[in-house]
Amino acid sequence: MSDGDTSEEIMGATYRALCAHGYADLTMQDIADESEKSKAALHYHYDSKHDLLCAFLDYLYDGFVERTSDVEGEAPHETLLALVDAVLDKPDDDSEEFGTAILEIRAQAPYEPRFRERLTRFDEYLADELTDILEAGVADGTFDPEMDPDDTARFLVTVLTGAATERVTAGQSVECTRRMLAEYVETHVLAADREVEA
Amino acid sequence: MSDGDTSEEIMGATYRALCAHGYADLTMQDIADESEKSKAALHYHYDSKHDLLCAFLDYLYDGFVERTSDVEGEAPHETLLALVDAVLDKPDDDSEEFGTAILEIRAQAPYEPRFRERLTRFDEYLADELTDILEAGVADGTFDPEMDPDDTARFLVTVLTGAATERVTAGQSVECTRRMLAEYVETHVLAADREVEA
Repeated sequence: MSDGDTSEEIMGATYRALCAHGYADLTMQDIADESEKSKAALHYHYDSKHDLLCAFLDYLYDGFVERTSDVEGEAPHETLLALVDAVLDKPDDDSEEFGTAILEIRAQAPYEPRFRERLTRFDEYLADELTDILEAGVADGTFDPEMDPDDTARFLVTVLTGAATERVTAGQSVECTRRMLAEYVETHVLAADREVEA
Repeated sequence: MSDGDTSEEIMGATYRALCAHGYADLTMQDIADESEKSKAALHYHYDSKHDLLCAFLDYLYDGFVERTSDVEGEAPHETLLALVDAVLDKPDDDSEEFGTAILEIRAQAPYEPRFRERLTRFDEYLADELTDILEAGVADGTFDPEMDPDDTARFLVTVLTGAATERVTAGQSVECTRRMLAEYVETHVLAADREVEA
């Protein structure tokens, strides 16, 4: 196995172990049980469970960037909504259990600076992507020039975070959020003289 | 001590213990240590830590309803923003530690139906209050008659949930959310011929 394959295999095992056990009770042995590696081999690659989970958050971040960086629409508002959809639509194999484990990890952020740093990176990346799209839409006249791209991007990230939290806490679908964000883009982001061709 | 005083004292101790220890590591002994009661006395009132925490969520719910049910503004949009502020402004004594413990409890919802039931009650109550205000504003002509009060209320709850999650995960202030929601109410909720007197 190459180093890359080994790391990929361990990340897959970490994913499965988080789904099965959640974050709070997770042990290196749980991850080893989901992996082809022994617990000793895991410790050879990662000093601690904490190190392994930091590497796992980096791995998720790379996947998130890959999944969201190539969205594109014909016009800026379509690109914006495509990005929103890419964030709301979890990959097919993402389970409720996994969303729950991620929320558990989010709740550790105040005690774990290395978790906070990595979780913040997701939000910053997403805010930057949204800001770029919003600025492009202002530049080409599609979007309202009075709209503040930074604040609007930050607001959209808050909405998406809320939808992810509610999915775990209340088992609630994201359809209402998707519909309301489409409406928000139409009434708040688009320039007044633009109409959306639905 | 009356039953009410005893229960109030135990709820205060639970609050302090959650702030000091978080949810995952919390024990009945930790709560007893913050209380005038012994661990045995706590067990006399509550069969398990889980029962005590359910009672604590009920206690928080009562406080939340009290804090948010009497907000009132001169006009529906002012009442709406006053309610948003009442949710965003945590009580003075609420610490970051407490918000973190609540997010930990939120992350347990899929495994703990009694937690989920109680957490959902907060969101349902808030959505109902918001819907009432939105419907009143449509009825008196302040709000856009095309606006769907149920969907809009649900969306506002999602935004407020996102702001609470980000406060924990990223240590982020709620000021941007507050500003953007005020703008949202202005551009999306108010009838087109209304202007906000700022």
